[in-house]
Amino acid sequence: VNFRSDNVSGASPEIVEAIARANRDFATSYGDDDVTARLRRRCCELFETEVDVVPVVTGTAANALSIASITPPWGVAFAHTHAHMLRDEWNAPEFFSGARVVPVRAAAPTLTAGELRAAIDDVLASDVGVPSSVTVTQASEAGTVYRVDDLQAISAERSRGDVHLAMHMDGARFANAIAFLRCAPADVTWRAGVDLMSFGATKNGAAGAEMIVIFRRELAAEVRHRARRAGHRASKMRFVSAQLEAYLADDLWLRNARHANAMAARLAAEVSALHPVEANSVFMRIPDDLAQRLQDAGFRFTKWGIFGKDVYRFVCSWQTDEKHVDSLIQALK
Amino acid sequence: VNFRSDNVSGASPEIVEAIARANRDFATSYGDDDVTARLRRRCCELFETEVDVVPVVTGTAANALSIASITPPWGVAFAHTHAHMLRDEWNAPEFFSGARVVPVRAAAPTLTAGELRAAIDDVLASDVGVPSSVTVTQASEAGTVYRVDDLQAISAERSRGDVHLAMHMDGARFANAIAFLRCAPADVTWRAGVDLMSFGATKNGAAGAEMIVIFRRELAAEVRHRARRAGHRASKMRFVSAQLEAYLADDLWLRNARHANAMAARLAAEVSALHPVEANSVFMRIPDDLAQRLQDAGFRFTKWGIFGKDVYRFVCSWQTDEKHVDSLIQALK
Amino acid sequence: VNFRSDNVSGASPEIVEAIARANRDFATSYGDDDVTARLRRRCCELFETEVDVVPVVTGTAANALSIASITPPWGVAFAHTHAHMLRDEWNAPEFFSGARVVPVRAAAPTLTAGELRAAIDDVLASDVGVPSSVTVTQASEAGTVYRVDDLQAISAERSRGDVHLAMHMDGARFANAIAFLRCAPADVTWRAGVDLMSFGATKNGAAGAEMIVIFRRELAAEVRHRARRAGHRASKMRFVSAQLEAYLADDLWLRNARHANAMAARLAAEVSALHPVEANSVFMRIPDDLAQRLQDAGFRFTKWGIFGKDVYRFVCSWQTDEKHVDSLIQALK
Amino acid sequence: VNFRSDNVSGASPEIVEAIARANRDFATSYGDDDVTARLRRRCCELFETEVDVVPVVTGTAANALSIASITPPWGVAFAHTHAHMLRDEWNAPEFFSGARVVPVRAAAPTLTAGELRAAIDDVLASDVGVPSSVTVTQASEAGTVYRVDDLQAISAERSRGDVHLAMHMDGARFANAIAFLRCAPADVTWRAGVDLMSFGATKNGAAGAEMIVIFRRELAAEVRHRARRAGHRASKMRFVSAQLEAYLADDLWLRNARHANAMAARLAAEVSALHPVEANSVFMRIPDDLAQRLQDAGFRFTKWGIFGKDVYRFVCSWQTDEKHVDSLIQALK
Repeated sequence: VNFRSDNVSGASPEIVEAIARANRDFATSYGDDDVTARLRRRCCELFETEVDVVPVVTGTAANALSIASITPPWGVAFAHTHAHMLRDEWNAPEFFSGARVVPVRAAAPTLTAGELRAAIDDVLASDVGVPSSVTVTQASEAGTVYRVDDLQAISAERSRGDVHLAMHMDGARFANAIAFLRCAPADVTWRAGVDLMSFGATKNGAAGAEMIVIFRRELAAEVRHRARRAGHRASKMRFVSAQLEAYLADDLWLRNARHANAMAARLAAEVSALHPVEANSVFMRIPDDLAQRLQDAGFRFTKWGIFGKDVYRFVCSWQTDEKHVDSLIQALK
Repeated sequence: VNFRSDNVSGASPEIVEAIARANRDFATSYGDDDVTARLRRRCCELFETEVDVVPVVTGTAANALSIASITPPWGVAFAHTHAHMLRDEWNAPEFFSGARVVPVRAAAPTLTAGELRAAIDDVLASDVGVPSSVTVTQASEAGTVYRVDDLQAISAERSRGDVHLAMHMDGARFANAIAFLRCAPADVTWRAGVDLMSFGATKNGAAGAEMIVIFRRELAAEVRHRARRAGHRASKMRFVSAQLEAYLADDLWLRNARHANAMAARLAAEVSALHPVEANSVFMRIPDDLAQRLQDAGFRFTKWGIFGKDVYRFVCSWQTDEKHVDSLIQALK
Repeated sequence: VNFRSDNVSGASPEIVEAIARANRDFATSYGDDDVTARLRRRCCELFETEVDVVPVVTGTAANALSIASITPPWGVAFAHTHAHMLRDEWNAPEFFSGARVVPVRAAAPTLTAGELRAAIDDVLASDVGVPSSVTVTQASEAGTVYRVDDLQAISAERSRGDVHLAMHMDGARFANAIAFLRCAPADVTWRAGVDLMSFGATKNGAAGAEMIVIFRRELAAEVRHRARRAGHRASKMRFVSAQLEAYLADDLWLRNARHANAMAARLAAEVSALHPVEANSVFMRIPDDLAQRLQDAGFRFTKWGIFGKDVYRFVCSWQTDEKHVDSLIQALK
Repeated sequence: VNFRSDNVSGASPEIVEAIARANRDFATSYGDDDVTARLRRRCCELFETEVDVVPVVTGTAANALSIASITPPWGVAFAHTHAHMLRDEWNAPEFFSGARVVPVRAAAPTLTAGELRAAIDDVLASDVGVPSSVTVTQASEAGTVYRVDDLQAISAERSRGDVHLAMHMDGARFANAIAFLRCAPADVTWRAGVDLMSFGATKNGAAGAEMIVIFRRELAAEVRHRARRAGHRASKMRFVSAQLEAYLADDLWLRNARHANAMAARLAAEVSALHPVEANSVFMRIPDDLAQRLQDAGFRFTKWGIFGKDVYRFVCSWQTDEKHVDSLIQALK
């Protein structure tokens, strides 16, 4: 039973069917196809505003292309010290942007406006570069979720004096956040000041599909230019777009996320979790010998040293079922 | 009827089935899965030597990661002036490597050893950088094919005095070349001096799958490091690898390529092609008004100015059928 | 006697004195000093318009920072195939910009508007990137000089349809060009469409000083940002600025250039030069054995293969005197 | 009276004389001159081993070229959170290397082996990149000095399991450290494991001259390649090398540093310094109104927030004299 990450899951049947369905005859390459056009329209509807959409295949690509498009080479992007972008994507954001990503120290797994302000002030007091952007992860790396208020407060902090930061959201687990918040996607994105976002699907049921959703549409040309020169423009893009279209159809994205969240909640109800379990990840402290016994019993999960010694991460996905969770609970007891 | 490129075709049914088949339960992410392991073994068999394999999703990624892994930032990579890498991938190779790709002027669509030597000498006479690598496209951008001898001659030219070039093959249409040559894949790759190659599948029946095949295996770690920081390591890599496994199974790659080549030959037999038609592309001169009438009649193809005014490219794929070709021939007459 | 390059010469006495004179007490670092402020004002006067000035220490820095500030990473900069930037600065412009510098094939050592147009069209017909800038070398690498008309024609070509190119001038030997043209510096720079230039001094009497003169002043912040992150902002900048101030004082730059040009003309009058000798370089064809005998006799000069087999370059500087030239003429006869 | 930085000082008379003296006739450009050759030999003598030397003009250039030469694009360089490289050079090291510089949290202004180990472990527990290098600043940004033991301990920590870090020393104020330690330069560099260093001169009496001293000589070619493509190879290099030669002659570097250190000590004796004053910087806490009064009285110094609210930095240089210090002490009281 694999709780290592949500990316060890397979693809939802609807996603695989959509790939098969997109496989009809010839189609214009590089995104000028009907599926991609429909996907964009669907996103406009979902976000209740005109958006541009750039489908890519990995979350790192989505994040790095986004950051590069809002941070000049002499700029600074701010990210939570735990940010996936800082800890799990090698130096992709710096590679793509030429800029520096500065870690913001924070008390919780989500940033506060005050913590961002302190980080900006520290950069202004040094010769690191020009404060240019901030990225927030929704849901956070600890499985907690920014509320509308939190994001508005961060957004309000973005413009002060000579400083104006563009705002990116790493939504690798956006579905899990929306499933928790039950709010309109617009409320925690553009209405809260987000300029562009990485909207993930792979962890939540796609085979390999993410998209950059661009609310500030004048950024779209640059994002596309950057995707091309980074080898991130799929020639048969319809097969990526088809996954994303199916993902958003009939609420598959929310159904999958609700299930994953529910499984995490089921687990959290029986154990002592380190953080509020608002999405699909559960972190807990486990003694070494128990961790070993769990491994021996076939459970897979990951040591997560950033949250302390003996801390382990268990991630539920759309594919995790109650039996998996119950057997883990059993084993933990 | 779409002759614009082979990437306007869909995916072979075997490929889509392989994606569905790979969709079983949990699998370790990032390439540590069974499908990817089997793919590597299959490639060792196919190339009759131990190789490493890094699956990626676009040909530009395969090329740029390869070039970066054999060309230091102060190096020079040599490529035919027509090279896809120089004309169709923005500056991805330079972006990934930090080096310069220097165009080699050549009489034919394939490079000769002498032309490479002249280009090296020119670089040595200037302060452009250190000659470090050469890339050849097999089949070439004009649909012609390097023979074993051609490659050996180029390879022999690589080491002279202080100069030693690593050798890369852009095999976006490698299948079409092998279908034409009917030789062992090893003969035109590592046995002819190729250090690593981009082995394409997308144009020839995959949905989105390419792989870097590494013959000089000490390069593998660097290629993987570079793929990670460029966002080119798919988390659910099994879905990419499954396509490639199916591609190489039961000679699907060769069957598809033979068909595409045959369709191009069928077309070439009736028209006056600009280059020997050895793979799946046909270039011809067409007066403007005829070109317009063809477009109006629903044929899709591309102006190809690099080969002269009024030159157009028609590419056949595994999906092009005889009726498509015959209707085009009809329309041309 | 050394004709290898003008950079084998020393520094004019006025330059060394200026360095000594600048060495007074404390001065604000990084360019906020009085000397640098005076230098800017002097440049405004010289160019008859408000300009910004960024002093740097090498011509490659001036060129690469300039190109990077007018060419986005997905852009294309156009340069004559002979351009110093393409042949003698490694890949500094690409390194700093992330863009590609595309060589423009040209009949003469200077570009024409038509040649630029053809190169733009070729890029537009491919997927190389977005045409973004053009650079011209004044005086050219062959020692010829763009007339006002030539530059205006190139400038006029810059904006067509969706294309708009920024224009840079590599003025490593700007003084030699102005000494030849006897025109106002403004006439061949901003009045002819140049947005920013590398204004050289090192080859013409400075110890190590160049400056980026910025006519389109909104570029200045970016140039400065880029200089900082490239280690090209001298802390004790006054010692660089002092050289440039002395260079422009009392027409030292023109006096030095006139002398160098006169020496080249003196040589050209007695030999068969390959190009019109309008500045301070003379290229000529010399049989191998004569070249060897000249070397043996202590003359230093450079083989210049780009202009043909047996072609050699002889460069005169402010320090070359008539005896040097006459002894070379003697030896050549 | 300017205590803002040691780079507000001018150049020692010996330095200016050396520039004038180097200005004789023609000299081969780009470092193949006699002065540069003598400088290298002098460094071999000083460091009691064969070294290579690459003169550059800024400390940022020296640092960034060094880090890039020992850290691959997928690598991690470790630096103290206070490191000049992290706080004052924009993102030059990342720009030149393509790698990430990871801040190491430390209790004191100098790193300990244990702190380095913790930072390595943290990187190994994440997907940030491959631990590749460590840099130490001697004297530190707080004006304290690594002892031989400290460096040996850090060096010993470099190789553990699969990890091997190259070691760089930022010696912008190396002279001040040696003046304090009174040890052989070799003892705190290569004998303690340093592979290459930035040896500063500008802050301590040069007009604009630093050098990369390379102890692991196989790095020299790469450093030179990188310097060329970054515009950091001065054409008339003799004028940079001459400064460095004079700096090392007759112990000028140590005499200047001893003086600067003595001035800092004189100041520290009368005030309450935040750190042990071992080099030429003094940090102290000053109430806002007093700081303002000092400014009004003509004293120049810098707020240094990284060491706490109300902390200010006063730097003495070779040019600071006792009267300057005494008047400051007076004003502080």
